[in-house]
Amino acid sequence: MEAKEIRERIRMKVHTGPTSGISGDKVQANLVVLPKKYAFDFLLFAVRNKKPVPVIEVIESGEYVSTLAEGSDIRTDIPKYHVYKNGEFSEETDDVSEIWQEDFVTFLIGCSFTFEQAVLDAGIPIKHIDQGRNVAMYKTNIETVPAGIFNGSTVVSMRPFPKDKVEQVIRITEEFPDMHGGPVHAGAPSEIGIDDISKPDYGEFTEYNEDEVPVFWACGVTPQNVILNAKPEIVITHAPGYMFITDLNNEAFQNKQ
Amino acid sequence: MEAKEIRERIRMKVHTGPTSGISGDKVQANLVVLPKKYAFDFLLFAVRNKKPVPVIEVIESGEYVSTLAEGSDIRTDIPKYHVYKNGEFSEETDDVSEIWQEDFVTFLIGCSFTFEQAVLDAGIPIKHIDQGRNVAMYKTNIETVPAGIFNGSTVVSMRPFPKDKVEQVIRITEEFPDMHGGPVHAGAPSEIGIDDISKPDYGEFTEYNEDEVPVFWACGVTPQNVILNAKPEIVITHAPGYMFITDLNNEAFQNKQ
Repeated sequence: MEAKEIRERIRMKVHTGPTSGISGDKVQANLVVLPKKYAFDFLLFAVRNKKPVPVIEVIESGEYVSTLAEGSDIRTDIPKYHVYKNGEFSEETDDVSEIWQEDFVTFLIGCSFTFEQAVLDAGIPIKHIDQGRNVAMYKTNIETVPAGIFNGSTVVSMRPFPKDKVEQVIRITEEFPDMHGGPVHAGAPSEIGIDDISKPDYGEFTEYNEDEVPVFWACGVTPQNVILNAKPEIVITHAPGYMFITDLNNEAFQNKQ
Repeated sequence: MEAKEIRERIRMKVHTGPTSGISGDKVQANLVVLPKKYAFDFLLFAVRNKKPVPVIEVIESGEYVSTLAEGSDIRTDIPKYHVYKNGEFSEETDDVSEIWQEDFVTFLIGCSFTFEQAVLDAGIPIKHIDQGRNVAMYKTNIETVPAGIFNGSTVVSMRPFPKDKVEQVIRITEEFPDMHGGPVHAGAPSEIGIDDISKPDYGEFTEYNEDEVPVFWACGVTPQNVILNAKPEIVITHAPGYMFITDLNNEAFQNKQ
């Protein structure tokens, strides 16, 4: 199915589930929507923290069509949105047209689905995918570089790999600098401030044995975490796992060495 | 002399001339200062047009110290500033402390002095430098990607090189992606909308003969040009040739292949 068709099925509430695995080789993106008065601080935060917040498109206020997705409508083409008000979760909804504001600026942010596909294509299995689970995500002690009202620590996603595959996985993911790039850490979770690896802050824990190494990537949940600290009056994001599907191919973001 | 000392001599009005050649291997930067209400549009313009507008630092409103330059004061450490009001040139001054506003956001933008040094270090002479002239700059038909109130065409700088040196010069300058990177054009000026090469829009013309090829780089004057189109009530820039000297070494921006 074409990406455009999938977006239409989402818009028509035919597809209402998570988007993992439904878009073939197409890039999926994280969503952050903010009133324009916060847009400079957030874009500067993204520029200063490119690994957790790799912006792939900014849709200016007054617009809701992504140039990366033909005929798209950012207000309806994601299966599930989260709305936050003054730093608190307000509602989950499948359509934000009714609450859309003229001054909203939309940020589309790269997603690890892109490098996961490249790892799978190299014949390396990814445990949480095989187990049909969500990836495990953790708050760390890795501080972001603050910008304006935005500050806080980096959220990471964790994927365990056999010791002899770790170097290859690092190399593959480094080829996607605009999709979180190479890992921020591999090895002991305590070194980046994770006290109990079995209790992720988001998602589900993936067990690993002593022949495997936990590898950690900067995660697109970081901006959500940081935005909630800043408590703007309204923010819209995608619901984790329910992403925006673009017309771009994953390969477009691959920098072959 | 240390960069810090040079900045102090500039602040004390001991050094009042252009900054070309006075900072050794230190990075020099273009300056753009705008009220915060324009900062999102300008940062987005820079993100979308990285070749002409490679931002190396953003100093947030309320601040005037660059983290790239110890003990600096962005209001006094440039020998000559240009102030524009409502899109028109207003005054040239050596100190903007008196007109500084709490809501000013400062952008430091990469400068071709960095890649020129690398070309010279490779033993390739640069004609306008040998002749003690300012580089020739031209408006082109290469459109920038608009952002908010900012739009317009790219300004380029031109340097002629012997035919058999062009490939090497291209390669060297491509190693500095945050300092305008490789050229946008080499050869016939008319292909990028320059009708009369002997009449630059800024700077001074450098003659060349038929064994030489004119090579064109995206230029840090582009943002000044675009800002004037947008007519914000006040903008401060450096005067061309009178740059901000940082503590960074040119090599810090070199991506060796």
